[in-house]
Amino acid sequence: MSVTFARGFSAAGVAAGLKPSGALDLALLVGAAGTTATGLFTTNKVVAAPVQLARARLDAGHGTAVLVNSGQANAATGPRGAGDALRATDAAAALLHRDSDDVVPCSTGVIGEPIHMPELLAALPGLVDSVAPDGDDDFAHAILTTDTVSKQATATAGQFRVGGAAKGVGMISPNLATMLAFVTLDAAVARGHLSRLADDVLRDTFNSISVDGCTSTNDTVVVLASAAAGGSPVTPGTTAWDGLATAVGAVGESLARQLIHDGEGATHVLLIDVVGAADENDARAVAKAVADSPLVKTAAFGEDANPGRILQAAGAAGVDLDADRLDVWIGDVQVAAGGTIDPDSFAHGGSAARAKPAMAAPEVSIRLRVGDGPGAARVLGCDLSYDYVKINGEYTT
Amino acid sequence: MSVTFARGFSAAGVAAGLKPSGALDLALLVGAAGTTATGLFTTNKVVAAPVQLARARLDAGHGTAVLVNSGQANAATGPRGAGDALRATDAAAALLHRDSDDVVPCSTGVIGEPIHMPELLAALPGLVDSVAPDGDDDFAHAILTTDTVSKQATATAGQFRVGGAAKGVGMISPNLATMLAFVTLDAAVARGHLSRLADDVLRDTFNSISVDGCTSTNDTVVVLASAAAGGSPVTPGTTAWDGLATAVGAVGESLARQLIHDGEGATHVLLIDVVGAADENDARAVAKAVADSPLVKTAAFGEDANPGRILQAAGAAGVDLDADRLDVWIGDVQVAAGGTIDPDSFAHGGSAARAKPAMAAPEVSIRLRVGDGPGAARVLGCDLSYDYVKINGEYTT
Repeated sequence: MSVTFARGFSAAGVAAGLKPSGALDLALLVGAAGTTATGLFTTNKVVAAPVQLARARLDAGHGTAVLVNSGQANAATGPRGAGDALRATDAAAALLHRDSDDVVPCSTGVIGEPIHMPELLAALPGLVDSVAPDGDDDFAHAILTTDTVSKQATATAGQFRVGGAAKGVGMISPNLATMLAFVTLDAAVARGHLSRLADDVLRDTFNSISVDGCTSTNDTVVVLASAAAGGSPVTPGTTAWDGLATAVGAVGESLARQLIHDGEGATHVLLIDVVGAADENDARAVAKAVADSPLVKTAAFGEDANPGRILQAAGAAGVDLDADRLDVWIGDVQVAAGGTIDPDSFAHGGSAARAKPAMAAPEVSIRLRVGDGPGAARVLGCDLSYDYVKINGEYTT
Repeated sequence: MSVTFARGFSAAGVAAGLKPSGALDLALLVGAAGTTATGLFTTNKVVAAPVQLARARLDAGHGTAVLVNSGQANAATGPRGAGDALRATDAAAALLHRDSDDVVPCSTGVIGEPIHMPELLAALPGLVDSVAPDGDDDFAHAILTTDTVSKQATATAGQFRVGGAAKGVGMISPNLATMLAFVTLDAAVARGHLSRLADDVLRDTFNSISVDGCTSTNDTVVVLASAAAGGSPVTPGTTAWDGLATAVGAVGESLARQLIHDGEGATHVLLIDVVGAADENDARAVAKAVADSPLVKTAAFGEDANPGRILQAAGAAGVDLDADRLDVWIGDVQVAAGGTIDPDSFAHGGSAARAKPAMAAPEVSIRLRVGDGPGAARVLGCDLSYDYVKINGEYTT
């Protein structure tokens, strides 16, 4: 269950013929009238046409439905791409009897390839007809590209329900552009408060996962609140708000972890925890540097407990840290203390050998203490395998 | 020929038993009395003990000789590592009848493993005895770790000679720490002017190559000027200075290109040129983002002319650029114009197909025009192959 677990939402997914494979490739999520919405978007300077239109509509306070196509990213497509995003949402809005501004577009697929508009427009009536409260599984499948499984999550907070669906999983050849996530809740939340909720409990979550360090042209998170659970609007500073925030955060965390587990070629998930930094930003920068290091990622693939590579990556994070204060653990085994690696660590029974089982686990926990500051962060990453190179190197257009 | 091509320098390399393989692993470069020296060092916050001592001695105006060991990086070794660097250079200085401060230490090899001091100290007398004007080839080989070939270069400027040797080639398992380069010249150059020369013509060169984006704990460039060619000191703003700078730059460029060609697992070299940026720093940031992108690197390995990945990497460089102004060429084929990829690029005879031969060349030229600014830069990179993963993933301690 995913986006229609929250009341007030219906969804559908159909095969429009946008993907050569014939798989589901066109999805629609429809909130009840009065649904509020907000979004988080890629920081890439190369921004796909649907991202520009989605951001404009959400920033203006619109958005009660989301139209998603997979197969073509509609990125680097120029004025034609902007027109295609408008035409697609115009057509969907007409069939839904809503304003064009109500429909938020999202695309994922090949960069540079225009959306196959005849197929999309021909499929829209059937898509709208099939929208239903149990359409969440089709929706969650129709947004996928190279994902091997759908990503769905739910949570509850008192009388409120929260659902979500996402797709990943790395930018892939020729250039499928990447992460989309949709989170629905049936509480009443004013649009400004919904933005705050997204900023507070979702932004860091989705900024803290990294398959290959590549920010795509299309990364989008859309959050919609239907008010269908009834009750007065939930506002910050209340118990209901805190509960809702926890549930939304749990859905986000679950989707993020599902994305990493399905990372391209991933055989191990990396949980990088940093504590003792000056602030959270510094902690996250160090954690991300370790998670994105090709040397740490290949060490994880090789199941090699390798403290030197972790120290090297932390030191190159661009954060002002004292190398003599760096403590590192792999699993429960301390592999560096005060910036120094035990000289016997590589010997029989040394710390590198003792940490090897933790490095071979499906989820590899690497912890760094970088000082006495209050800053802490966790970043989720994955290893760099032959399959990553194969997936991204062997596919040719 | 390398570091002793410039007059006033002698060198040697011996097998001290620091490397399990028994290969040459201890090297000495000795300049004539009165030699001036300067250095460029890693920006990693985790800095090896020899880097700290070398920087201190060079900053204080000392340094007429360089002692290099391979096999152990003497990084993350704590107070013991600092003591080892002191003891090694003390012993070498005594044998050379120079002050300890005159000897600059460099180490490369396994991070966290202390230098094998008994072997090093036992080998020093033989090393000093074998120092000779034709010892440059042994020197150039003794500094190598996982390099497959030595890197040597020479150039002349009027009566002056410039030589250089370097080692690479990526941080490798368990954690060999990385780039060392030594450049010698036989002009007389005051210490302050030598620093300026290094800053002006070598810093950007060695900052513009990237095998895997990983800044090591030991990266060091040492430049020494012996004055052995005679003549008065060469000073900035003269024709002699310009000639010398050109020759030093040529040696640096040659070494940098040799390093990239020997990059771990590299099958293609990437030449990333960026023009039209606001300034040189922005241009270099964009070029480096493209060179370091795992998606561009795997596309090069797959010989896939892939404009979407290049646009994506440029857009994520953290530089303020206008996506609608991005032009991209692979070889001589324009694959994106005004931020837009030709919709027929993937069709038969389209730009992606026409650019494929350029993507399959040993040196892949990728050019980006990002605007009308004066900033330009070139970064050299290499592709990401199965062998990179194999070298860094399969080796276990």
